[in-house]
Amino acid sequence: MAKQEVKLLSFWASPFAWRVEWALKLKGVDYEYIEEDIFNKSSLLLELNPVHKKVPVLIHDGKVILESFIILEYIDETWKQNPLLPQHPYEVAQARFWAKFAEEKLLDEAWTAMCSLGEKKENSRKLAIEAVEKIEEVIKGKKFFGGESIGYLDIALGWIAHWLPIWEEVGSMQIVDPAKFPATIAWMKNFLNHGLIKHNLPPRDRMLVYFHERSKTLSAVQQG
Amino acid sequence: MAKQEVKLLSFWASPFAWRVEWALKLKGVDYEYIEEDIFNKSSLLLELNPVHKKVPVLIHDGKVILESFIILEYIDETWKQNPLLPQHPYEVAQARFWAKFAEEKLLDEAWTAMCSLGEKKENSRKLAIEAVEKIEEVIKGKKFFGGESIGYLDIALGWIAHWLPIWEEVGSMQIVDPAKFPATIAWMKNFLNHGLIKHNLPPRDRMLVYFHERSKTLSAVQQG
Repeated sequence: MAKQEVKLLSFWASPFAWRVEWALKLKGVDYEYIEEDIFNKSSLLLELNPVHKKVPVLIHDGKVILESFIILEYIDETWKQNPLLPQHPYEVAQARFWAKFAEEKLLDEAWTAMCSLGEKKENSRKLAIEAVEKIEEVIKGKKFFGGESIGYLDIALGWIAHWLPIWEEVGSMQIVDPAKFPATIAWMKNFLNHGLIKHNLPPRDRMLVYFHERSKTLSAVQQG
Repeated sequence: MAKQEVKLLSFWASPFAWRVEWALKLKGVDYEYIEEDIFNKSSLLLELNPVHKKVPVLIHDGKVILESFIILEYIDETWKQNPLLPQHPYEVAQARFWAKFAEEKLLDEAWTAMCSLGEKKENSRKLAIEAVEKIEEVIKGKKFFGGESIGYLDIALGWIAHWLPIWEEVGSMQIVDPAKFPATIAWMKNFLNHGLIKHNLPPRDRMLVYFHERSKTLSAVQQG
């Protein structure tokens, strides 16, 4: 079989792009990493993703695959070793449901809460906490969302373990109260201690500086 | 094999619920249709979908599957006859990408344009037209998005053929200009003339009344 060519357009602080990296590494797929400057987008990015102009972009033997959840499923369907999605269609549906839920109800709200002030911040923070309440019920009694080993939903929600605490710090707010969400906190630790994940995370200090800067810029735009 | 039990909680005017009906009918799966009053939600709906409280809800042998795109994939994985998704993972990724794109960039904007006035309406209408421009490129030269026969993406985008013209009429606006989007218009006709689809559409006159009422209520809320 001819050697296949896998490239990933990524950005070091993007939780969406890191999902794809984790999946490729869990599958043991070699790939070329291409760092994108999201503030000065390359002609390559604009050519490959003219619709959304966003990372991650996966290029597999010349074929372009976009959108992080869609890329995860593509990776799982293309490289069958170490399956990410469960076997049964019902469990697959559950994993997809919670991935979408966390993206819309937790990630978006937590991001908005970090980047805003006053009533808007508090409203988004409350919605984010309500989302964690649901997630707490799902993870209760399990090591990983995928069961004993890491799977699609762990990768989809992995940002909660590493990005969310930073967003909480930057936004001077609490979303995942350890007293209220012990199962979520335990899962976060399990995820971050996973042999592969712990060596594949962007550095905390650099993220703190970056997201501080981002939230300042975005809240200035809102108020301007 | 024991007879399986399939139930669908639906609403007669929901484009999300009709997707699921089309998929079940294309697969030849018998199901019990349960009409939901979305303005006075049943305890069954609140129990089965406590997170979003929305139709469609598919119940298959007691298992609850939520979110229309996720239900479509579940149906395709569970009943293998008449496959909806393409065979190759890359084509599957493409179908998923355009389904998500149309939902976020066309359906949401067209709905907002119908339910609002002035600058907000015009802004959403423009974004909706930009989305149709992309879809026009995808469908050009094909009978269906699925090729010669109807597939996942046709079902996901089917609302464009039947709902969107009604939303345009109710909102006194044009989004799909036939002179600019001949391939989209041709696909809409192919879709509506499909042997199964043409007998499974909510009545146009009743939809006109319903969406008129909905848009009046929603734009009153905005202005209130």
